[in-house]
Amino acid sequence: MTIISLLTDFGTKDGFIGVMKGVIWGIAPEAFISDLTHEIAPQNVAHGAYILGQSYAYFPAGSVHTAVVDPGVGTQRLGLAARIGSQFFVAPDNGLITIPWKNANQAGESIEIVALNRPEFWLKNVSHSFHGRDIFAPVAAYLARGVPLKDLGDPLPEPVLLDLPEPVINDTDAQAQVILVDSFGNLITNFTRAMAADRKIAEISVAGEKLKGLVSTFGAAQPEALIAMFDSSDRLSVCVVNGSAAGRLSAAVGTAVTIHWA
Amino acid sequence: MTIISLLTDFGTKDGFIGVMKGVIWGIAPEAFISDLTHEIAPQNVAHGAYILGQSYAYFPAGSVHTAVVDPGVGTQRLGLAARIGSQFFVAPDNGLITIPWKNANQAGESIEIVALNRPEFWLKNVSHSFHGRDIFAPVAAYLARGVPLKDLGDPLPEPVLLDLPEPVINDTDAQAQVILVDSFGNLITNFTRAMAADRKIAEISVAGEKLKGLVSTFGAAQPEALIAMFDSSDRLSVCVVNGSAAGRLSAAVGTAVTIHWA
Amino acid sequence: MTIISLLTDFGTKDGFIGVMKGVIWGIAPEAFISDLTHEIAPQNVAHGAYILGQSYAYFPAGSVHTAVVDPGVGTQRLGLAARIGSQFFVAPDNGLITIPWKNANQAGESIEIVALNRPEFWLKNVSHSFHGRDIFAPVAAYLARGVPLKDLGDPLPEPVLLDLPEPVINDTDAQAQVILVDSFGNLITNFTRAMAADRKIAEISVAGEKLKGLVSTFGAAQPEALIAMFDSSDRLSVCVVNGSAAGRLSAAVGTAVTIHWA
Repeated sequence: MTIISLLTDFGTKDGFIGVMKGVIWGIAPEAFISDLTHEIAPQNVAHGAYILGQSYAYFPAGSVHTAVVDPGVGTQRLGLAARIGSQFFVAPDNGLITIPWKNANQAGESIEIVALNRPEFWLKNVSHSFHGRDIFAPVAAYLARGVPLKDLGDPLPEPVLLDLPEPVINDTDAQAQVILVDSFGNLITNFTRAMAADRKIAEISVAGEKLKGLVSTFGAAQPEALIAMFDSSDRLSVCVVNGSAAGRLSAAVGTAVTIHWA
Repeated sequence: MTIISLLTDFGTKDGFIGVMKGVIWGIAPEAFISDLTHEIAPQNVAHGAYILGQSYAYFPAGSVHTAVVDPGVGTQRLGLAARIGSQFFVAPDNGLITIPWKNANQAGESIEIVALNRPEFWLKNVSHSFHGRDIFAPVAAYLARGVPLKDLGDPLPEPVLLDLPEPVINDTDAQAQVILVDSFGNLITNFTRAMAADRKIAEISVAGEKLKGLVSTFGAAQPEALIAMFDSSDRLSVCVVNGSAAGRLSAAVGTAVTIHWA
Repeated sequence: MTIISLLTDFGTKDGFIGVMKGVIWGIAPEAFISDLTHEIAPQNVAHGAYILGQSYAYFPAGSVHTAVVDPGVGTQRLGLAARIGSQFFVAPDNGLITIPWKNANQAGESIEIVALNRPEFWLKNVSHSFHGRDIFAPVAAYLARGVPLKDLGDPLPEPVLLDLPEPVINDTDAQAQVILVDSFGNLITNFTRAMAADRKIAEISVAGEKLKGLVSTFGAAQPEALIAMFDSSDRLSVCVVNGSAAGRLSAAVGTAVTIHWA
């Protein structure tokens, strides 16, 4: 048994994901497949990188995470397969693996990456527009079946990495920003619980609103209240209880969020 | 092989369901997982209870139904695991299991329920906002792996049950109401085929419209016709053939439906 | 291990697909199930036929494709199970299998079809409106479990086939039409790469726009450009890079597309 996760911007309407599973099971008949999401904003690599980055570590060692958000499909951009710590990744070389790559480097875990240049591990006919089906799904399946990473291509020492925005932390405040808006309209920032260290948060400013301190959970506030809390990935989030903070504040990815220390 | 079903209000955009599967397969690598739905109306426990109630009995004995619609997450509300007849359930203790509980009581089947208070069966770090990942998914996986129910927590003799509306049945009519609107806009009521017993239905009134009797299936009526029929769960439903009854009648959950006897 | 694919117009909100999986696993506990799509336009058999037709060949031999787009449910229309080449199909007899049927005939592959008339392979209670659950899911599961096709019903020599539109090819041009609009708004036509044979395409006319020649992939054009290309199923498609051609051109299924030879 090996687990393959799939993350794409393909949607679920047109059968593309079902076909990728058919291809996978033709090569690795016992693979268990988890759909992470197929609703990444079209061609938005950073969105894909954030969702993959908050998800992969919850999978068992040896899982193969297949991420296809691929504005460069059919051009000269490379594909890659990687072992990052105990997890495997298959993706175009466009920065989708940025967060696991950074996490492993910080944790001192080893990383191996190859460029996908061995067509014997692909479908026979490779289209110009659907490498998810023709290259990435079969490569993921061969990995799941036990083909060694190094057999899939030549070493790729320098993968493309995204320059994801980091908060600027001062003596009086931290300048963060919204990096994700989830399906409930919660505004998720790049400021994490660990960044607060032993500082106490007095106030949070966002889109002209000022929030006094944090709550620990939705249930601790009234319906329609505008609150700030650390989310389930320990990132500072601004939320409306039973509502949409994105709608209420007309906020979006990139909106500035300032955290004032007590 | 054990089957786990998942029912949530999380949507499928943000990767949360994929992560729950990663957690489950880390504990129960051979579990087969069926997504019942992740489109329960946000925080609408009754909606979740109705969908779970119409679905669970079609699964093999020993399946583990994991339902997470959880407005109280992070507060003092309990979690529970239950064996109800031949099926297992894992959910917050907020009424999601109301229908299987009532069905089992009516059928004289045995019920065992425990409150989830043994953190050794949870993820090590439990967030305040995502117990689906941190508590319910691992507990479901341990059940699927064969851990006895009683090991997961102390007995919970009185689970929270929802007060779901029942029709009022008189000599001349039955006063029912819409309890679900499905994705086609069909209006599903709380009046079931069994409640008609040997009475014949002459007319149905809903939202100012009067329908003469029932049809047996969509194919028996013209496109755009407003019809009443017993649905695949034997509940009286008001439908527009190839259209939306909810839209046509401006009806919603709670709309009154009167069934007049012949 | 056997693979079952599911294609329906049921949506994913109401739990119907999850229930079908419960029914399948009650009969074939080791079946791997791939959701092709559940977003076929309601009751649109041609839409279902096109998506099934572009997908099934990517699955391993012996897969069981279960397609339920069923405006005639509950009427006298038959259900069928078929072996078409190396793949199995279970569906209402309404034309959903048209494309695999035509492909197999062109390729000289054998076809066996039976009408589903043996209730011992169905659920005990068959509703008038949900044969996906009550007939097609159990029949697919029995096929996956190894029950011979001929045991499931009597031979059906003449299945219903759709009259899908074909391009008219002249000396100066080909008169094609849009047959699918995908979730990105790409306009997919019934003109395939093979139909061009050794002719060169000079210009494509659609909805008052003229496109000069084809590009090979999205990455070869500028954002917002209106382009034509052969898609991943080798069908001529009209697309807006990072945008919706359907929206830009107010085009839809049935819109005429003329391909002018050089």
